[in-house]
Amino acid sequence: MTKPLLQIALDSLNLEKAVADAKQAEDLVEIIEVGTILACAEGMKAVSTLRALHPNHIIVCDLKTTDGGAILAKMAFEAGADWLTVSAAAHPATKAACKKVADEFNAAHPELKVKKEIQIEIYGNWTFEDAQQWVDAGIKQAIYHRSRDAELAGKGWTAEDIENMQRLEQIGLAVSITGGIVPQDIHLFKSIKHAKAFIAGRALVGEQGKTTANAIRAEIAQYWD
Amino acid sequence: MTKPLLQIALDSLNLEKAVADAKQAEDLVEIIEVGTILACAEGMKAVSTLRALHPNHIIVCDLKTTDGGAILAKMAFEAGADWLTVSAAAHPATKAACKKVADEFNAAHPELKVKKEIQIEIYGNWTFEDAQQWVDAGIKQAIYHRSRDAELAGKGWTAEDIENMQRLEQIGLAVSITGGIVPQDIHLFKSIKHAKAFIAGRALVGEQGKTTANAIRAEIAQYWD
Repeated sequence: MTKPLLQIALDSLNLEKAVADAKQAEDLVEIIEVGTILACAEGMKAVSTLRALHPNHIIVCDLKTTDGGAILAKMAFEAGADWLTVSAAAHPATKAACKKVADEFNAAHPELKVKKEIQIEIYGNWTFEDAQQWVDAGIKQAIYHRSRDAELAGKGWTAEDIENMQRLEQIGLAVSITGGIVPQDIHLFKSIKHAKAFIAGRALVGEQGKTTANAIRAEIAQYWD
Repeated sequence: MTKPLLQIALDSLNLEKAVADAKQAEDLVEIIEVGTILACAEGMKAVSTLRALHPNHIIVCDLKTTDGGAILAKMAFEAGADWLTVSAAAHPATKAACKKVADEFNAAHPELKVKKEIQIEIYGNWTFEDAQQWVDAGIKQAIYHRSRDAELAGKGWTAEDIENMQRLEQIGLAVSITGGIVPQDIHLFKSIKHAKAFIAGRALVGEQGKTTANAIRAEIAQYWD
């Protein structure tokens, strides 16, 4: 077992706020994510700037890549992203294109401490057969979440969510978990022994950010060895 | 019946090339699209710059919005986009959030000649029941395509593609068609009487762009009144 990491999703509308939020959170998290909103607002300079400011963190670029995989993956990895999100809804050829770019990047840079990887972000109608295909294609990570809009609409975590995560883990995917994560929810996921990361955004920003991060870490320490 | 429009998708890696391509194509197309690649590379300034340069074109922002719908829609419409793409894989709450932003924008700006709209970009596992839900939610447009990566992998247009488009049209969606569109393919879609637009990218750029655009228009004139 490994302890899940903590990931901050930066979803501000401009880079200035994002770099401030990242600076405040840098000692609290292992992973800094350029969220979709930030990436769409500011483009790849958001990735390259956060890469430069945080050379020792894992940087995730959350493009939810849905098409044009080879170009977007090259763009994100060259800007300094370690991991790139790819939508479960993308055509298998798009996922394969992203994976190929990551593999080629890793082969060309054996010195990389953190290998380039893609993470399947689970949206839309999906099946465990799809998930098996991702694993068969060499993909090792997936992101499971409540959608932000579903969360705003009041949708909670369900027993089905937990069962889905367990099955994804059994298939061979390390799962990151996101969607309004708060300390008091962490125990819900204790059966996900290889959870890769918990991802939170606004909860880790502002005055309460450090308190919240420490509370999440305390919960993680309680349930994972 | 209305004649399908012609749309250029700008998918360059930087804004300088995009504005040059748009300038060259401005007399050839009714719709200028900030493609996902360009939007991810340069952020919303790509939309605002092209809006400023082309006040009389319809501007599409192709974010393939998958989550965070309210924020992304507000960002795109405020930057000057007329239409925003939303992934079919997005949660219904995300689609509803985007639609609500568009409706509120239209209500606040009755002077708009082109109303803000969202377009469902069809990716992933989807059903006609899903499509009916989009229509029930007040959505009027969808985009049907071969994925760029599927196209690169050699996948052609099939009879099933055409039948799907016909059914989407019957449900009440105006369909835009994309994925390596070339003049000699236009006749394949002649049964899609309310096709909204044909979308092409590289085909409309460069020395052959004008010739290709005129050839597509000639085909459209032949098959649509």
